[in-house]
Amino acid sequence: MRIVSLAGGIGGARFLRGLKAAAPDAEITVIGNTGDDITLFGLRVCPDLDTVMYTLGGGINEEQGWGRADETFTVKSELAAYGVEPQWFGLGDRDLATHIVRTQMLSAGYPLSQVTEALCTRWNPGVRLIPMSDDRVETHVVIEDEQGRRAIHFQEWWVRLRASVPAQRIVLVGADEAKPAPGVLEAIAEADVVILPPSNPVVSIGTILQIRGIREALEPKPVVGVSPIIGGAPVRGMADACLTAIGVPTTAQAVLELYGTPLINGWLVAEEDRDVALDGVRVVARPLLMTDLEAAADIARAALRLAEEVAA
Amino acid sequence: MRIVSLAGGIGGARFLRGLKAAAPDAEITVIGNTGDDITLFGLRVCPDLDTVMYTLGGGINEEQGWGRADETFTVKSELAAYGVEPQWFGLGDRDLATHIVRTQMLSAGYPLSQVTEALCTRWNPGVRLIPMSDDRVETHVVIEDEQGRRAIHFQEWWVRLRASVPAQRIVLVGADEAKPAPGVLEAIAEADVVILPPSNPVVSIGTILQIRGIREALEPKPVVGVSPIIGGAPVRGMADACLTAIGVPTTAQAVLELYGTPLINGWLVAEEDRDVALDGVRVVARPLLMTDLEAAADIARAALRLAEEVAA
Repeated sequence: MRIVSLAGGIGGARFLRGLKAAAPDAEITVIGNTGDDITLFGLRVCPDLDTVMYTLGGGINEEQGWGRADETFTVKSELAAYGVEPQWFGLGDRDLATHIVRTQMLSAGYPLSQVTEALCTRWNPGVRLIPMSDDRVETHVVIEDEQGRRAIHFQEWWVRLRASVPAQRIVLVGADEAKPAPGVLEAIAEADVVILPPSNPVVSIGTILQIRGIREALEPKPVVGVSPIIGGAPVRGMADACLTAIGVPTTAQAVLELYGTPLINGWLVAEEDRDVALDGVRVVARPLLMTDLEAAADIARAALRLAEEVAA
Repeated sequence: MRIVSLAGGIGGARFLRGLKAAAPDAEITVIGNTGDDITLFGLRVCPDLDTVMYTLGGGINEEQGWGRADETFTVKSELAAYGVEPQWFGLGDRDLATHIVRTQMLSAGYPLSQVTEALCTRWNPGVRLIPMSDDRVETHVVIEDEQGRRAIHFQEWWVRLRASVPAQRIVLVGADEAKPAPGVLEAIAEADVVILPPSNPVVSIGTILQIRGIREALEPKPVVGVSPIIGGAPVRGMADACLTAIGVPTTAQAVLELYGTPLINGWLVAEEDRDVALDGVRVVARPLLMTDLEAAADIARAALRLAEEVAA
């Protein structure tokens, strides 16, 4: 079986670990969000790709869900001693090596997709991880505070401000020109099933869907989504702040409508959201909390079953 | 009093610490060697500038003489886990922050002299540290081994091979085009005294002297050198391997002749080298081992006295 999954960071990565357990023989291609990528101190950081790579490769900090296990922050504190900005991004020493290798390869002319493949030869994530695009696209957030109305990088809004200042707009800079990375459309074309994990529907999955040709390639496929919203609240993270920014209520129903048809064929919701319904979509309610690997695998199995049903 | 000193790495830095103690009220400008500089993993590393900056700024690893105190090597071991080369350079986590800041500033268009000044605002070395040139010059070493005759970067010869393969030639790539950094010739013109510390006469002091205009600017000044050779052996390091490469014996006499007149006016040698002599040069013999800060200060005081004598 060939499975394609789109993925953001923590939620996506934890779901994918369940998916691997649920379908150990499947050929899984993960299309990773790169809208969160940022250049810090001259180093290219790809938080979502790394979260997937570290989580599936056994290097993740399990407790916080991002960054490396047994991490230290010596370089970060030395950079702060030099007074250089930004100091709000948690760049760990182990993690930093990834960014150094990536930046050096990008400078040498390798596209991000090849860089990601090279990094994965160390981590062996057990999936094929492809960035949504080799082109630079960046999620910017329009806010208004005492400094006036301005657009800031998503990471500044998310990490520094912890989304505490309302987003007036969320803009994917570069989306119009960006092409899917090599292998993305091919993997979708060959997929038996497509799964949308409970990643952020705006700045993770929504970002990937904005890359030209990806949504269109997905539409003829059996696509099953796992709701990132349970009973009116995000399972984790701050998806509500992103949904509010684009005028979408924080409900499993609204996210389903945001993805819409003909893209989505099956929608997995939590039991409290069993009333969710949309023409042309098969909705299944079940426990959706990924409390551990087994719970994540159960959800993935349910998603795969639902995909089989909608494909039939 | 205005003092200019040329400097390489460890020996130069330790002497400079003594010089500061010997002349606490002097205005000291240090012209640092950049021929050893190397780009590793996309980061610009300036070993000699950093050794001077860390030593005078209180951040040096006292025991080894280079690198940061309380250093860790997490990033280095992670880079090795990715299999990237080179793995023979001891890039510590604390040290790395310096290279990250430097590289980012260089990429933004600042010349190395301004970058060095910016880094020194953290370290307050108590001297004005200027790289010999803002232009890229690199010491390469011609060797012949089982892979044939080839030129390698000085650091590869020095650090990886520990100078164990004889150098057939030592070439300063870029020396013909390099100009002294802003402030270098001005500082020399205004200097009352110039001191050459016991740095490597070939790849540290010799390199600085190859930059167009520096030797000529020094010649009219009272210049006193401290011999890096005691009784036929380098005080520390592998200066003998460098001297052999350029056909110069490892003696205090031969190094004095290498520097030559009219550059040198005074030459401080160890007691066992009291027979050293050269027309036009005043030679003084005294203990030259920099066993501690006080010993280094004593040598610096002797160098300053000798400079006064030759200036009279």
